Amino acid sequence: MTLSRVAPATGRLGLLMPGMGAVATTVIAGIMLARRGLAAPIGSLTQLGSLPMRRGDASSEVPMREALPLAGLDQIAFGGWDLFPDDALATATNAEVLSDKHLNLVADELRAVRPMSAVFYPEFVRRLHGTNVKTAPSKADMVTQVREDIRRFMRDEKCDRAVAVWCGSTEVYREPGPVHATIESFEAGLRASDPGISNSQIYAWACLQEGVPFANGSPSLTVDIPAVLELAKVRGVAIGGKDFKTGQTLMKTLIAPGLKTRMLGVRGWYSTNILGNRDGEVLDDPESFKSKEVSKLGVLESILRKDKMPELYGNISHKVRIDYYPPRGDQKEGWDNIDLFGWMGYPMQIKVNFLCRDSILAAPVVLDLALFLDLAQRAGMSGMQDWLGFYFKAPMSPAGTSPEHDLFAQHERLHDTLRRVAREQV
Amino acid sequence: MTLSRVAPATGRLGLLMPGMGAVATTVIAGIMLARRGLAAPIGSLTQLGSLPMRRGDASSEVPMREALPLAGLDQIAFGGWDLFPDDALATATNAEVLSDKHLNLVADELRAVRPMSAVFYPEFVRRLHGTNVKTAPSKADMVTQVREDIRRFMRDEKCDRAVAVWCGSTEVYREPGPVHATIESFEAGLRASDPGISNSQIYAWACLQEGVPFANGSPSLTVDIPAVLELAKVRGVAIGGKDFKTGQTLMKTLIAPGLKTRMLGVRGWYSTNILGNRDGEVLDDPESFKSKEVSKLGVLESILRKDKMPELYGNISHKVRIDYYPPRGDQKEGWDNIDLFGWMGYPMQIKVNFLCRDSILAAPVVLDLALFLDLAQRAGMSGMQDWLGFYFKAPMSPAGTSPEHDLFAQHERLHDTLRRVAREQV
Amino acid sequence: MTLSRVAPATGRLGLLMPGMGAVATTVIAGIMLARRGLAAPIGSLTQLGSLPMRRGDASSEVPMREALPLAGLDQIAFGGWDLFPDDALATATNAEVLSDKHLNLVADELRAVRPMSAVFYPEFVRRLHGTNVKTAPSKADMVTQVREDIRRFMRDEKCDRAVAVWCGSTEVYREPGPVHATIESFEAGLRASDPGISNSQIYAWACLQEGVPFANGSPSLTVDIPAVLELAKVRGVAIGGKDFKTGQTLMKTLIAPGLKTRMLGVRGWYSTNILGNRDGEVLDDPESFKSKEVSKLGVLESILRKDKMPELYGNISHKVRIDYYPPRGDQKEGWDNIDLFGWMGYPMQIKVNFLCRDSILAAPVVLDLALFLDLAQRAGMSGMQDWLGFYFKAPMSPAGTSPEHDLFAQHERLHDTLRRVAREQV
Amino acid sequence: MTLSRVAPATGRLGLLMPGMGAVATTVIAGIMLARRGLAAPIGSLTQLGSLPMRRGDASSEVPMREALPLAGLDQIAFGGWDLFPDDALATATNAEVLSDKHLNLVADELRAVRPMSAVFYPEFVRRLHGTNVKTAPSKADMVTQVREDIRRFMRDEKCDRAVAVWCGSTEVYREPGPVHATIESFEAGLRASDPGISNSQIYAWACLQEGVPFANGSPSLTVDIPAVLELAKVRGVAIGGKDFKTGQTLMKTLIAPGLKTRMLGVRGWYSTNILGNRDGEVLDDPESFKSKEVSKLGVLESILRKDKMPELYGNISHKVRIDYYPPRGDQKEGWDNIDLFGWMGYPMQIKVNFLCRDSILAAPVVLDLALFLDLAQRAGMSGMQDWLGFYFKAPMSPAGTSPEHDLFAQHERLHDTLRRVAREQV
Repeated sequence: MTLSRVAPATGRLGLLMPGMGAVATTVIAGIMLARRGLAAPIGSLTQLGSLPMRRGDASSEVPMREALPLAGLDQIAFGGWDLFPDDALATATNAEVLSDKHLNLVADELRAVRPMSAVFYPEFVRRLHGTNVKTAPSKADMVTQVREDIRRFMRDEKCDRAVAVWCGSTEVYREPGPVHATIESFEAGLRASDPGISNSQIYAWACLQEGVPFANGSPSLTVDIPAVLELAKVRGVAIGGKDFKTGQTLMKTLIAPGLKTRMLGVRGWYSTNILGNRDGEVLDDPESFKSKEVSKLGVLESILRKDKMPELYGNISHKVRIDYYPPRGDQKEGWDNIDLFGWMGYPMQIKVNFLCRDSILAAPVVLDLALFLDLAQRAGMSGMQDWLGFYFKAPMSPAGTSPEHDLFAQHERLHDTLRRVAREQV
Repeated sequence: MTLSRVAPATGRLGLLMPGMGAVATTVIAGIMLARRGLAAPIGSLTQLGSLPMRRGDASSEVPMREALPLAGLDQIAFGGWDLFPDDALATATNAEVLSDKHLNLVADELRAVRPMSAVFYPEFVRRLHGTNVKTAPSKADMVTQVREDIRRFMRDEKCDRAVAVWCGSTEVYREPGPVHATIESFEAGLRASDPGISNSQIYAWACLQEGVPFANGSPSLTVDIPAVLELAKVRGVAIGGKDFKTGQTLMKTLIAPGLKTRMLGVRGWYSTNILGNRDGEVLDDPESFKSKEVSKLGVLESILRKDKMPELYGNISHKVRIDYYPPRGDQKEGWDNIDLFGWMGYPMQIKVNFLCRDSILAAPVVLDLALFLDLAQRAGMSGMQDWLGFYFKAPMSPAGTSPEHDLFAQHERLHDTLRRVAREQV
Repeated sequence: MTLSRVAPATGRLGLLMPGMGAVATTVIAGIMLARRGLAAPIGSLTQLGSLPMRRGDASSEVPMREALPLAGLDQIAFGGWDLFPDDALATATNAEVLSDKHLNLVADELRAVRPMSAVFYPEFVRRLHGTNVKTAPSKADMVTQVREDIRRFMRDEKCDRAVAVWCGSTEVYREPGPVHATIESFEAGLRASDPGISNSQIYAWACLQEGVPFANGSPSLTVDIPAVLELAKVRGVAIGGKDFKTGQTLMKTLIAPGLKTRMLGVRGWYSTNILGNRDGEVLDDPESFKSKEVSKLGVLESILRKDKMPELYGNISHKVRIDYYPPRGDQKEGWDNIDLFGWMGYPMQIKVNFLCRDSILAAPVVLDLALFLDLAQRAGMSGMQDWLGFYFKAPMSPAGTSPEHDLFAQHERLHDTLRRVAREQV
Repeated sequence: MTLSRVAPATGRLGLLMPGMGAVATTVIAGIMLARRGLAAPIGSLTQLGSLPMRRGDASSEVPMREALPLAGLDQIAFGGWDLFPDDALATATNAEVLSDKHLNLVADELRAVRPMSAVFYPEFVRRLHGTNVKTAPSKADMVTQVREDIRRFMRDEKCDRAVAVWCGSTEVYREPGPVHATIESFEAGLRASDPGISNSQIYAWACLQEGVPFANGSPSLTVDIPAVLELAKVRGVAIGGKDFKTGQTLMKTLIAPGLKTRMLGVRGWYSTNILGNRDGEVLDDPESFKSKEVSKLGVLESILRKDKMPELYGNISHKVRIDYYPPRGDQKEGWDNIDLFGWMGYPMQIKVNFLCRDSILAAPVVLDLALFLDLAQRAGMSGMQDWLGFYFKAPMSPAGTSPEHDLFAQHERLHDTLRRVAREQV
């Protein structure tokens, strides 16, 4: 990684979100309230965290916002795309994530945020039927339309730069194919409306072409295909992914390293999730669930290395379930059962019940990813930003290497990179 | 810390345990079986762990037993003291920790391990009434008797060195007083049978006088008094403590750093424990519980720094309960409820139910502490071994400093120290 | 029990609540909303339930409100006493039980409900310091003042009848003494301000003297003393108690009969509660907790008869904990662990985690008790109404008999009595 | 129901179990130990329960074994069929339900119990591959072979009577078809080896033809088809089913009536199960799971009548999951989340975690069903024994009626019937 001198964060930053549902509107409302001092952006490292300027030395900590030339909350302009035409206030009200008390304080500002029409090939998104959608003769034309959206948005909102964070639903599971192999094959595919090219890939392609960094918050196949990786390099744009690490997987990547530290064995890990929001509805479709399942299953294997410690981790039954369960709305709930064993193999059990809130956990992740990607871009860091793995369930890693899933190792890695950037500022 | 060249681990090592109940007999049986290849010493870093020879570089890992001149399991001889005269087989059978299948395999060896008579001033140990106890005109004479026990044991068992690990019950809560201030005041107190001198302090004093390193597995006031710290320095003996970090607190020091990493706020943490073994019976006494409670409560405050992040951790309701509940025997159970909050202050909850086994979790800790203390002693590291904080609920730290409770930071610290020792071997 | 022809429920019914905190204001707001069709009185048998006119015959069910001459919600007038002078809107707002959306709909009505000043001998109520309190030379004078309050309230509110339901805090534990033995001894005690006479007893005495039926929602010693029982008979007034059966105990009296039905053994039952409202604060005092503990512990013994089935229920470790834990406010939480055993004695476990809301569960109980006591009074049923045991943790039963705790048996008993009343209507 | 004078339980009773796995061997070993006084038959009403001779009058209780002419444990002979040839000792050892300590006490007796070869059309049983199976030209010949097995068993074991209780795996889901409509169509189907005729139906047909009562412990379509019901009537044989009510469903039919009693609303009920025994392996097949799911889902709807109380139970999200999870073996675990609501619709949650043991809960049910079916048979009660619904997840009920699922109502019904039988004894 070569760093340039980091350009200052002057001017306005567009935050573009494909998928403006519960998560995106929670991000928007929260930032609007935070910049007026009416709510705290809890969970955000860029806003509340500190960076130790020397590794392992707490006494050298400096607030992130001082240590790094990050864009400020006041500089952010909000935009995005959605299948439904509702403005951010209507969407947030329906989502029932935030209280009326909070929404009322920024109602007018929220009402002014309206989604642009979406790219929507329905074969990638089950269970949803959109009305606010684009039509175009080919997928290449769709890319063109999205690029025009971006340019118009930046012009209207007087933005100097933009970043995109995918906040939409999970798409159905797909393996990468020949169409995803190179820039050329992908562009040919766009022109031919190749069925292997998904909605999220169209957004990513358009963003990169416009020089807009892109992070993928869902488990869909989007920026982790060779063609996109290549384009990011060629165009010098930062990308990150995939799948926000929020509830159950967050706990998993925190507990598993702890058990390993103590050399406690694991015989089984059963995880079930119930959730009732639009995300849950989409995941009720088996093909969409497959995307999520693959994303969630890799975690343990990577942390608990069965090859290195077969007597402890050589035989783990790992099951992950997600069930659509409407009564809870956005309040996702996870139940984990861990079968572990200690001295002489005697069995023990840990059960973790996490009553969390999907959008509340995701919102600060979106904000941090936006600000860090913008920072990376200004520091000349293009292509895959694997130091952002801290925020993802299925972190990217260079070909031939395994991603790091241990939350604490990811955190250290994030800090290491930020320290390097901090030293390069103008 | 100055290291000498580390002497090799030749000859036999005595493992002396004041308190030979469920924990001690689980240690003994497990080591007997492990050295015959009949059970794995799961949970022990010295037996199963690896040491990365370069920080953060997994590819440089070497098995602990190769990296360090640790005593081998075959070299260990078992001894100790207890209020009850039962041999290790009878005690282990009553404790119902290990299955008959396991105990039968080493029945004869276990039967041969008999506790020496105990120092027992009953005002420090509620709810228990011992029969295998020493009598002496003064506490000074008690020290003398214990020293003679140690010498006789080492002679009989042909030991070259010994280490002591307290595996007994929790004593009633006491603040340190003038008698604990200096070597002189303590020795005068021993002669006068000062009521402030506890059973565990008598054992520790005798061990240090005999050059035997001492670790305190309970929350009692034992090696963490100025007189003992001074004696350890003067006599050049390593000490460690206190209170084995096993079930609920282990989970706490693993989850709390994770929440902090993500900048999630904590509003409350309620912990309750039910346990039915002798430990539970003793803790049913309010004064003994006080010792445990103080040991357990410090953890959160240290990890979640309210001074540094008042908006996240400035107002935590932290409650710890321990209840004696006979039906479960040694199978301790913890239930934790964590009230956390995220983006804009919205509340979430985590509940952790840990069905653990007290002695199974403590046994590998005893083994590791014994081998690491012996290693430290051979490396010339005397006095407080605060790098062993990884194993303790209430780790020692130099006067004027706060102990580290974060499990991962403790683990890193342990590795740092072991790497230094590894480089100093002959 | 002899029934008279039941007088019709004409005119207005005063609902008097000593203790106008979270529970009382939830009752009041709920009834105000329900009678305007803005919220459903969920949990109330009088409002939603049906009565099978023939035992065990579901096809003969008739809505309670048709089967019985119950007072209607529109006929109820609200009053009461409290240590704090806040009106019902202010109290409900502070209590954070009901949403602003609900409270706003009846804000004016609630604001008009103001507590009368309270009888407050502070030695019975720890942790609270009231400002809206009566002064009087003797406890007898206090009774007089409360009686005047009742008469004034009924006159002002144009009530034809009234009932009282204690909704205040738990008082410290007291055994009944000689002062509670007879009407004479109690009246002498009132005049002498006997320290054994509590605040709640003063209210009960005043109510009975005024012919107002009285139910005790707390575990305090109130209507279950011989003097009050005698007075209730003499004055022909209905009484009921004690301690609303809401969260954890409700679950217990539902699960225990189920286990017994299947002849499954029980070896232990551990119950802990965390709650953060005023009730929790009061119960943090050991003497007040004692009242609650005694009330909660009797349940299992009565349902699981150890004398009859010693091999199943002869040796149960039953523990009950209540801990004050502010983060949760009124949202009480119970965690139960049940150690049971089956075929050949093999052990199993059930854990029940109840995230309940204290006032939400209590409110319909208050309404039902008020309407049923009023019904009983009109039916000429005086003294102890043990058929209301369905609603209480520590149900009253005639001297020398054991109370029934099985929820299903209590429900059957309630129905039996109501059927008798239904047949006696005019 | 017409009763004859009940014939006495003289002579030996054969207990025939199709499917001799974990459940059947737990039954057998438990009865062998119980009749020697070495283990208690906990969970069995016939062995430990009492019958109130007058409804609702506990003082009139008489032990079941005195009130009714039940066969004694000493009179039972064990037999059955299985796909695997292992004897009962080998099977019980593999199943790891009972401890070696228990099995050793009756090892020789268990070793002598060997399964007869099984009827095995593999299309009905996924995931299992048997070796101890019959071959025959047609399904009619299979019936003949099973009838010969029964006769030989009764002759060899000198039995006077026999009962059969299906203890095998769940078969794949099937709707009843024309072949199941009448005795004639079924017999034609047998001769034509109709693919709609399952293994369990072949056993049931053979048993009824031999006058052996049959209970179905699995959710498969077996005795609940018109042809079998008709045959049971014609041949005068008692039948019962289906699907033993053991873990999670047992809890459900106990909690749901309790919530209804209190008029608390239910918005969702999510149930997941993890189990690792052969049963779990079979249910991992989607078609077999379908059988179980249908059986488990009916419960709530029947208890919580949405038609009668739409505001409380009109909109319940009810999900049931079963996951094969090997680490736990026979120790099934259920986790239930209930979303309920109270006063004014405010939401609450109950979570139930049941760490149960499948075979331990099923064994007393098998014993009771065997003894009660034998009793019914001697009392001349033929056809569907719907009063045994207490023991089943999907109880049978006469055509056009809904089955009763409420555990307490089922228990009352059982008692009512037994009282009638008790009065008819010779």
